[in-house]
Amino acid sequence: MPKVVDHAERRRELVEASWNVIANDGIQRLTMRRVASAAGCTTGRISHYFRNREELLSSALSAAYDDAERRMIAIAKSTLPAKERLKLVAYEGLPLDAARLREWKVWIVFWAAAASSSSLSDLNRARYRGWRNLLLRLFTDIESVSKSDYEMRVDELLALIDGLGIRVALDSSASLRKLARKTIDEYIARL
Amino acid sequence: MPKVVDHAERRRELVEASWNVIANDGIQRLTMRRVASAAGCTTGRISHYFRNREELLSSALSAAYDDAERRMIAIAKSTLPAKERLKLVAYEGLPLDAARLREWKVWIVFWAAAASSSSLSDLNRARYRGWRNLLLRLFTDIESVSKSDYEMRVDELLALIDGLGIRVALDSSASLRKLARKTIDEYIARL
Repeated sequence: MPKVVDHAERRRELVEASWNVIANDGIQRLTMRRVASAAGCTTGRISHYFRNREELLSSALSAAYDDAERRMIAIAKSTLPAKERLKLVAYEGLPLDAARLREWKVWIVFWAAAASSSSLSDLNRARYRGWRNLLLRLFTDIESVSKSDYEMRVDELLALIDGLGIRVALDSSASLRKLARKTIDEYIARL
Repeated sequence: MPKVVDHAERRRELVEASWNVIANDGIQRLTMRRVASAAGCTTGRISHYFRNREELLSSALSAAYDDAERRMIAIAKSTLPAKERLKLVAYEGLPLDAARLREWKVWIVFWAAAASSSSLSDLNRARYRGWRNLLLRLFTDIESVSKSDYEMRVDELLALIDGLGIRVALDSSASLRKLARKTIDEYIARL
């Protein structure tokens, strides 16, 4: 009996291997050969799922954003109090564990590439808009924030998350992770 | 009569050419040959000032930090009111004009490289500490902030500046530059 292949799972394994290569070796080292080696498979299998390096790279980037978004949407839809939901969504956007740290490294590498590529910076802008809209909807449930302040507050919180995220991603100590959580907690408590 | 060569100026030209290569083409494209081409000189001249690519790269990174620091220290030492000094120092850390945008692109590219290099991330941490100490001293002059809050406030402001900086660096429109200034203005006004 032939082995049943779960294509989604196989694809996912290759995406995860790409994240590891990007996070550990940098974007310029992402090649079909290196991902094959990281995934313990042949380059032939990679080519079966991704036409070329560009398709592998854009799939890996999109998947990193999708993963974070999925976790955030699940929290946003929960029945927790509005400030609690906002806080937990903000935490999901910070490199507070190994999985999110790897995501953050992928994003930082992506930003560096976007700094000299208009197609990547367009993709980044589109993703940023999605992330901003998700936070904006959460703000509309917080009664202590007036409608005229939503935009300002959401931009402020986005900047805080990104700034804390970079700092922790490049210096991931327990004390900095704690500082990041505390900064978010205090910011949301003051709203 | 032989031409008098200003070595500091020559070195500076090569550092600026390196910034342009990093900001426009990315760090992996930084080679002696490419910098020579950007500076309109021979690779021989580059080798006269920098032993190899690594020395050129670390000099370019250090110079980007030094430039920003020099501008910030000049403001910090001025006789302007404390909140005004803090605001102007924060502005210097944001990509609000072409020179600072180039600096920011160099930093983002540097962070991406630091994500997979412990020596670069050590350099980044050291620079970050310097930048944090400079802001911390400015906070001690703001009477409305109590001593026990200095650390928290400085970390918050640092995160805001970094988060706004990335956003503007990757999407440098007049409206986003305005948003970045406004966010800093409001934050400092509330202190």
